[in-house]
Amino acid sequence: MADLVGNLLVAQSGGPTAVINASVAGVIQEAGRHPNHIEEIYGGLNGILGILNEDLIDIQEEKGKTIEGLKHTPAAALGTSRYKLDFIKKPDQAAEDMDRLFQVFQAHNIRYFFFAGGNDSQDTAHKIHEQAIQRGYELRVIGVPKTIDNDLPHTDHCPGYGSVTKYNATTVMEIAADVGSMATGDGACCIIEVMGRAAGWIAAGTVLAQRCASDAPHIILVPEVPFDEAAFLAKVQATVAQSKSCIVVVGEGLKNAEGEEIAADKTKLDAFGHPVLSGAAELLAQMVNSKLRTKTRTVKLGYAQRAAAHFASETDVQEAAACGEAAVRAAIEGKSGFMVKLVRLQNKPYRWTTGLQPLGDIANVEHLIPRDWISEDGFLPNEKFIEYAQPLIEGELKLPTEGGLPKFVTLEKVRVEKKLLPRA
Amino acid sequence: MADLVGNLLVAQSGGPTAVINASVAGVIQEAGRHPNHIEEIYGGLNGILGILNEDLIDIQEEKGKTIEGLKHTPAAALGTSRYKLDFIKKPDQAAEDMDRLFQVFQAHNIRYFFFAGGNDSQDTAHKIHEQAIQRGYELRVIGVPKTIDNDLPHTDHCPGYGSVTKYNATTVMEIAADVGSMATGDGACCIIEVMGRAAGWIAAGTVLAQRCASDAPHIILVPEVPFDEAAFLAKVQATVAQSKSCIVVVGEGLKNAEGEEIAADKTKLDAFGHPVLSGAAELLAQMVNSKLRTKTRTVKLGYAQRAAAHFASETDVQEAAACGEAAVRAAIEGKSGFMVKLVRLQNKPYRWTTGLQPLGDIANVEHLIPRDWISEDGFLPNEKFIEYAQPLIEGELKLPTEGGLPKFVTLEKVRVEKKLLPRA
Repeated sequence: MADLVGNLLVAQSGGPTAVINASVAGVIQEAGRHPNHIEEIYGGLNGILGILNEDLIDIQEEKGKTIEGLKHTPAAALGTSRYKLDFIKKPDQAAEDMDRLFQVFQAHNIRYFFFAGGNDSQDTAHKIHEQAIQRGYELRVIGVPKTIDNDLPHTDHCPGYGSVTKYNATTVMEIAADVGSMATGDGACCIIEVMGRAAGWIAAGTVLAQRCASDAPHIILVPEVPFDEAAFLAKVQATVAQSKSCIVVVGEGLKNAEGEEIAADKTKLDAFGHPVLSGAAELLAQMVNSKLRTKTRTVKLGYAQRAAAHFASETDVQEAAACGEAAVRAAIEGKSGFMVKLVRLQNKPYRWTTGLQPLGDIANVEHLIPRDWISEDGFLPNEKFIEYAQPLIEGELKLPTEGGLPKFVTLEKVRVEKKLLPRA
Repeated sequence: MADLVGNLLVAQSGGPTAVINASVAGVIQEAGRHPNHIEEIYGGLNGILGILNEDLIDIQEEKGKTIEGLKHTPAAALGTSRYKLDFIKKPDQAAEDMDRLFQVFQAHNIRYFFFAGGNDSQDTAHKIHEQAIQRGYELRVIGVPKTIDNDLPHTDHCPGYGSVTKYNATTVMEIAADVGSMATGDGACCIIEVMGRAAGWIAAGTVLAQRCASDAPHIILVPEVPFDEAAFLAKVQATVAQSKSCIVVVGEGLKNAEGEEIAADKTKLDAFGHPVLSGAAELLAQMVNSKLRTKTRTVKLGYAQRAAAHFASETDVQEAAACGEAAVRAAIEGKSGFMVKLVRLQNKPYRWTTGLQPLGDIANVEHLIPRDWISEDGFLPNEKFIEYAQPLIEGELKLPTEGGLPKFVTLEKVRVEKKLLPRA
């Protein structure tokens, strides 16, 4: 294949993670190693939305140490959005947007496009790849996996998942110690709500906290197992009777036997049309309080868990950066229409590499926890899960601090001159 | 004063902190330096309740490295409780309990008693001190300050406060980066609820997150300033208009103009008769959602914040340990009926020492944020507060980890043989 020479555009999409910036750093640092192919390195602000608005920044105006600092900086340094090219519900708008994207690509001679995101974002990358072929516009599109939810198929796991799991498991250990030390005669229950939507990977990951000579968390409720109120209450009661305290972790997307999210407020939808989830922990706490009369407190970690760079997994950071690097190498080699995936080579000691998967295999496929990785009663992940998750949280970053707080970097964001009329 | 020779008893009371075990380590390590005064070192399990039940452990059966490890281990290693000697509401029970306490002290020749806790616990220590005099039982009682709420009077600040503030400020920085990177056209709001009951110290402490080139948190609501809904909504709206995202921190005990907690559920009281607080963030989020139509998420850190040893303040740990050591030294010197306090000597560089304050000055006095440490509009702590709080979060502990998670210690808890009949 003939060498393709042009400019590079990298953008982030969807909810941030503690390590999505590490993937961008990987893209940028690898791009710098291919000056014969890549001329300018641009960043698109706020995902697709920024590209549509021609809001591009010149990454080569940034300091090298800022780019390196992205590896310990949470959130989306380029900005992100949930804006979607929705060819089903808004076909006219989507078609118009697609035209505009290619106008922007052409105006800035974008030939390499890297898009870090989850399910919806890989779908967008796939559509852009197909359109490029259809339009005869030479463009190499590679998706970079990113989601704390860990629900992308074909990749062993997703960058972002190791860090959210490390932070959540640590937090559950700490809370369990706290509640356990307070529990006297009447017992105490604490219900910790974590993210993950329809997938229980994040909730299940807190089982790693059990190693600390403690048997907490005692119950982990995942959306993969239909919620059974009676069995749950019986398990809480038995746990309090035995251990005085009961630590419950619940995934926000927990579902009942009818497949309905127990805490979904269907009146609120996000930009992708998914219902906004909240309140599973509060709902369960009310249940335990009223039915068992056990003192119950709740914790809702919310965004704190996906932004917790201060205790990120070193393994996760390295993998996230490697995904960015692998994306650029694949594109330089002439590949397009793939997502980088993580491939596990062995478990002890943990060894991994990166691979490529066609984007068409990824879009809109949700990867859930296999049922046989969860105990028969459905209340705890088993050894198979633990073997899978344990390596992903290992290692601690050397976090630079200043005055007692983490020292994160911010990009200068020097704008690339616009060449088009503003978007209609 | 003649040397008092006998056994030492240390206990923990009330809600745990990230560093209450460091104070116990300080007591134990200092006690070991006075073998001519202190024969046995005992720990009382679950505060007053354990002493009443004669549940004592022999600390000298613990490994030295376990005691040192307490300095990075959260929760109450000896167990704690909220059990109260309530001479007002339950005078008969309280009198009976007091008799029993002295039976236990006598049976085990306890001559040095150290009690780590907050307001209510210092009150208990004070009553025990007075009773010892009245009963002619030679006992040296010293209180060790402990509360994340930072509401004890006469001490510059309280062990536990620095660590909760370091963790919360870090979390607010991380969430602010996350929400800021997601905020596009319509803006976004995130409301983070923190602890602190009637005192706003914890909420106010998150102002330290502002240093990170970000202006978040934009609004901090403290119980010291009556909540004004209209002014709050106007401030959120203005912030979203200017910065696209608005980060609000709210203390759980926020009050309205009538002095009522906006989120108190008066039907639920804890063991001390305080209403259980929950839901200030949810309540405010509903307000912002419905009145301003701004997308609003909540975070409720709950117990996670006071147990977050994984990012404890080194300054806080050192001070907590020093308070324990100072308590033992004071008792050896013949003092009784005092609480150790922290005294600030200078700010830049920060220098501090310990002092003593009569327990009678502490009990049931609540120390709140001075009004002139908060901006005129009441929405942010000012420079005076920042100068006060900044030194307390400085320094990071070297946290031992194992398999990616903190390595906390647990005590062996070898029981001291009981000498009394079970408590009636």
